[in-house]
Order: sequence, then C-alpha cells, then structure tokens
Amino acid sequence: MKIDGVAYRTIWVDEDGWSVRIIDQTKLPWAVEIVRLTTLEHGAHAIRTMQVRGAPLIGATAAYSLCLALRADPSTDAMERAAAVLAETRPTAVNLRWALERMLVRLRNTAVSARLEAAYAEAAAIAEEDVAQNMAIGRHGLKLIEAASVAKAGRAVNVLTHCNAGWLATVDWGTALAPVYAAHDKGIELHVWVDETRPRNQGAALTAFELGKHGVAHTVVADNAGGHLMQHREVDMVIVGADRVTRSGDAANKIGTYLKALAAHDNDVPFWVAVPAATIDWMVSDGIAEIPIEQRSATEVTDVTGRAPDGSVLTVRVAADGSAAANPAFDVTPARLISGLITDRGCCEASAAGLLSLFPEHLHLSGPAGEIAAHQRGG
Amino acid sequence: MKIDGVAYRTIWVDEDGWSVRIIDQTKLPWAVEIVRLTTLEHGAHAIRTMQVRGAPLIGATAAYSLCLALRADPSTDAMERAAAVLAETRPTAVNLRWALERMLVRLRNTAVSARLEAAYAEAAAIAEEDVAQNMAIGRHGLKLIEAASVAKAGRAVNVLTHCNAGWLATVDWGTALAPVYAAHDKGIELHVWVDETRPRNQGAALTAFELGKHGVAHTVVADNAGGHLMQHREVDMVIVGADRVTRSGDAANKIGTYLKALAAHDNDVPFWVAVPAATIDWMVSDGIAEIPIEQRSATEVTDVTGRAPDGSVLTVRVAADGSAAANPAFDVTPARLISGLITDRGCCEASAAGLLSLFPEHLHLSGPAGEIAAHQRGG
Repeated sequence: MKIDGVAYRTIWVDEDGWSVRIIDQTKLPWAVEIVRLTTLEHGAHAIRTMQVRGAPLIGATAAYSLCLALRADPSTDAMERAAAVLAETRPTAVNLRWALERMLVRLRNTAVSARLEAAYAEAAAIAEEDVAQNMAIGRHGLKLIEAASVAKAGRAVNVLTHCNAGWLATVDWGTALAPVYAAHDKGIELHVWVDETRPRNQGAALTAFELGKHGVAHTVVADNAGGHLMQHREVDMVIVGADRVTRSGDAANKIGTYLKALAAHDNDVPFWVAVPAATIDWMVSDGIAEIPIEQRSATEVTDVTGRAPDGSVLTVRVAADGSAAANPAFDVTPARLISGLITDRGCCEASAAGLLSLFPEHLHLSGPAGEIAAHQRGG
Repeated sequence: MKIDGVAYRTIWVDEDGWSVRIIDQTKLPWAVEIVRLTTLEHGAHAIRTMQVRGAPLIGATAAYSLCLALRADPSTDAMERAAAVLAETRPTAVNLRWALERMLVRLRNTAVSARLEAAYAEAAAIAEEDVAQNMAIGRHGLKLIEAASVAKAGRAVNVLTHCNAGWLATVDWGTALAPVYAAHDKGIELHVWVDETRPRNQGAALTAFELGKHGVAHTVVADNAGGHLMQHREVDMVIVGADRVTRSGDAANKIGTYLKALAAHDNDVPFWVAVPAATIDWMVSDGIAEIPIEQRSATEVTDVTGRAPDGSVLTVRVAADGSAAANPAFDVTPARLISGLITDRGCCEASAAGLLSLFPEHLHLSGPAGEIAAHQRGG
C-alpha cells in the first residue's frame, strides 16, 4: 500500500540483495523510519520489541532473520540454534513457529553450500504467499462492499473495523482491510469507522495511519461509540480480522471485538471476519471454552503513549494512583454472531459446514478425532 | 464518602458560614485541591470549567452560587441576572435549570431583607435532598448486592460499572455507586470492575479514585474488556447511572453503556440502572428516536490527558495526524436490555408500567398527551 504516494511493503530485501528492510512500527504513526536488518540479532530484536507485529509479518520477519543467520554461519547446528532463538521472541505467535518450521523443513535437507540461496527463496515465497492470500481476501470481500454500494445507490459504504488488520499487520494489503483497499482502488465510495482499540490504540495509531496515507476516508471513534453508530444506521458492515478461528467458526480477535459483534447482531448489521487459511485452527471447536486468552501488562491500561505538545513521544498515566488494572488482550466472538468469514478461498458461513465447504481437506479433523486432538493440546 | 479516612462531600459551606467549598475535579485524580467560592463569578467559572460536574452536583453548585450573588446584591433584578448567567454555564444540564428555577420560585416572593437567609436554606435543602435520594438508592440497591452475596455464599460480588456515577457526580454517595458504598460499609465482600470510559476516562480517573480512597476493592479495565469478563462469569451484576431515563425505561448514559447492556443480556448478567426521580423524563418515550445525543470535541478522542513521568499533567495525541474523529457522548440502552431501575423510591422494571408503579403521580403523562408534549419539545 502507499505512504504519501510511494508503494511500500512492511518488509523487503534491500537493493544490496541480502539485507532486510522493515518499517519500525514502534515509531508509527509519528514517524516513518526504515530499519535495516543485517544480523540474526537485528531480526530477533525487531520481533521482540514489536518493530514488526501482526502474525503474518512476524512470520515473514522470522524467515528473513533465519536467512541473515545463515549468512554468518550456514551450518546445521547454527541454523537450528538461530531458529530456536527466533522461536522465543514472541510467546504466542502461531505464524512465527509455522514460518520457522517451514524454513527448517526446506533447509535441513539442502546442502550447506546451497542453503543461503534456498533460504532467501523460501522467505520470499512466504512473503509472496501472504500477499497473494491477502489479495484473494480482498477480491472476495470486494464483492460484499460492491453489493452494499449498489444497495446504497453509490453513496459511501460505511465499514467499521477494530484494531489493525491492515497491511501493516501483514506483508501487504492486510486481511480485514484488504477488501477496503480493493474497493477504494476500484473507485467505490467508502468510509471507515476506526475503533481506537484501547488499550494499545492500534486503531487510532496504525489503522488510521495506513488508511490516511493510502487516501481512504475514515474517522476515528472511541471503542464505546460503535453501538450508537449502528443504532443510527451509520454502519453498513463490520469487517475485522482474527487471531484464531475455530473449526466451528468462533473467532478470537482483539479485546472488544465481541461487543461490536453483539451490536451488529442487535442492529442487523453484517459482521464479517477476514482470515487467511492459516488462521483457522482445525484442532479447536469451542472458542470461549478452549482458546486461552493472553493477559497483558496492567500498565497498558493505566498508561497511554502519545505525542506531547513538544513533539516528544511519551507515556502518561491515566488511571488513579494505586488502582489495579486487568488487561485481557483478546476475546472470542461466537460463530452465531458472525455473518460470515472472508477467506482467501472465498466467503463462507461461520460454521463447521461453511468452513469445510471451502476447505474439504480438513474433513477428517472435524469429527471425534478432532475433539480428542483439541483436548490433547490442552486448548 | 471518605478520602484517606476523612469524610467529604463534593460541596459544602465553609466554617465562616457563607463561602462555599468544592473539590476541584479537574485536578483529580492527581491532586485533591479544595477551592473556595466567594462570588457569583467563582461559581459560574467552577461549573463552566468542570471543576464540578455531574448533574446533581451542578445543580447544587448553581444554587449556592446564587446565594453568593445575593450577598453582593439581593435585589430582584440582580438575582434574575445572576440566575441567567448561571443557566448559561452548561448547555444541556437539566439539573442546572431545575435548581435555579426552584431557587427563584422560593426567593421571588421573599422580602429582599430575608432573601439571603432563605437562599442558603433552599440551597442546603437541594443538597440534602440529593444526599437523601442517593442514600435511598443505596438502600434499595443494597438488597440486590446482598442477594448476590448470599447466592455466592459470601464470595466477593463482582459489580461492573461504566463512567462515574459515584459521589463525585453528586453531593454525596452517588447513584450507581450508592449501593456499592452501602454494601461495602455493611461489610459485604465486593469488587468493582471499572470501565475506563474513553474518551474522557471518568472511570479510570474518577471512579477508580473515589473507590480507592474509600477502600473499595476495584480493578480498572479497558472499555473493550467487559464482554470477555461477562463471558467468563467474572461479573455478577452491572450497575450504571443515567443522564435521562424515558417513561418507557430506555436509558441515555455515557457512550458505551449500550454495549455493556448487550453483553450482560447475552450472558444473563443482571443490568441495573440507578437514577433519582429527577432523571426520569416523563415527556419522552422512545430514547433512541427522541433523545438528542451531544457531539463533543474530536480532540477528546484524538488526545489523552494524564500525568507525565515528571509529574506534570499534560495532553498527548494518540491518533494519527490528519485523521478525523467523531465523539458522540452518550448512547441509549433500550429498556428491553435493562433488568431493572434502582430509584430512590425502590426498584422497578424498566418499563412504563414499572415506573408508574413507583411514580403513580405521572400516570396522566403516559398517554397520548405525553406523546404530544414530547413532540412539542422537539425531542
């Protein structure tokens, strides 16, 4: 997507052909700083400190970081050690381990002399596949926005989104925002309500930034406002991403998503969840009972980071002194509240039947065996 | 209620017998600063700049400010001018005009020589009646918390609240928090989940402050978290205040209240709205269609005020540059989502029948005549 007219991805190989460039997302939205990664340590640091975030982007960064490690030492021992270091950079990112495993499977049986080239090729494939999947989500979701646009006789379609499931969370295009960009680029009138997404403000900071820089009309609102907007017909559809979708269609996503799904349901507003295939967890069925929810630091709730009048970025305390805070990072939206899923293979009902219609290869996991597997995982 | 062991009200007459003391709420939760009001201008400034806020407290402050005006000039002309100045300090506060009208009705037919004494007596009556009404809400709501405590065999009752409907919004006790204080003071184990209440953070700043200072166990959460907490049975009841309740039981309250009501309904968690009689608007029936919603400044959404590491209180920008923001200040929770109302006359169903069972004197307004009156007001 574009920043001030220039096309960017969130990660790319430099003109030198080997070093890796990322946008330092800890500096957004206040500054667009490009960081050059040249070592394993750079890559691990980038993931650990959230210079890169978003499951797909974390995966791609881990893959490229392994390439950087192989430049220093392509031996099998060093490669395995590097992968272990990278796997520990974030505790819960599924894509991180998935990308590393994919790299290792490809490279373990590759001669040491051919490893570096193969690694860069595999990392590039991971990145390109992410872009292709997101473009496919965009194409399928575009049809929903086009239909809404027709129903409104061309008046702007109002999409509400929560958190950041845009291009900054992926290599390009994003998941929830891929249909928005596809519609915008096609000239369809639309406007996005951006939930600020406390406590980390990914909506106000990242989603608003990327929509603004690409030229998409949008308005930031407090997370509290969505119900009121839907009551007054100011929202035509909700599109959110997800961190995990169960095989029965429950969706774990950023805390607060469930509240918006309830409001959408109460006001007959379509509520869509956009996910690539990798986000569907076929081992888990009941999202509320089985998906563990990460509890993050209380200071994310008691404190807020922003730009001070003097231009410096600093953190201020907003909660009364001495008050404790709790910070569950995700919630689970039951499938019954979800109008449908937008996947890279098309749209489907948020149900086991709906998902299996698009992913028939998982049919063997949807019976009792799947239940057992889920329990064994301690989900 | 208490601050560090000392009993306070939000407004009181000084030991000198005439000047008025308030807690400067713009300084909370960072400092407890007592301000002395000695003139009409002081009182108008306190209301205008939100040193005092909350409808009942604004009313009491206006009444005492009129007393201060009469000390300087007790003539009828001066009194009417002073009331007009005070009426303009906040645009939408119903209690402000109600308190001023009550003062004028009492004082217009009082001899100029007797006015000052009568004015202080009437202002004191307004303040005492607010305290008595809130204590009555506390007594009636206490029964609900006691019943929950029994059902939990004495384990802590978890109450979730939104915004600040505590003693700081009234003269003492508060509305939604009056039952909480009554239960706490009686030794019932309880714990309050405090929604931070973006965009102005009245929960994190004021509710957390007053609960902490009175010694009530509580935890601040992002507004997004309540649905997740209810899904996981971490909330036994929700109690909120309201800015206006219609005669059919719809409740207008701080933006985001509706989302919590939806989550409570979806998880069979009792959802109570605590209001004094004055908050019931018998002229209005359909809250969503008829209650105009104040749109406040976008900067409340794009910016956050807190205490910087150096101790100074400052405002930081949290939204991306150039992004617009919308800021509806209230939403309407339909009566169907409300388990019941806690009023100073007792608890009742959130419905016309429920309200009229407690307030039979309003029976004449509930028919077509009431409808006409509502439309004439431009509801």
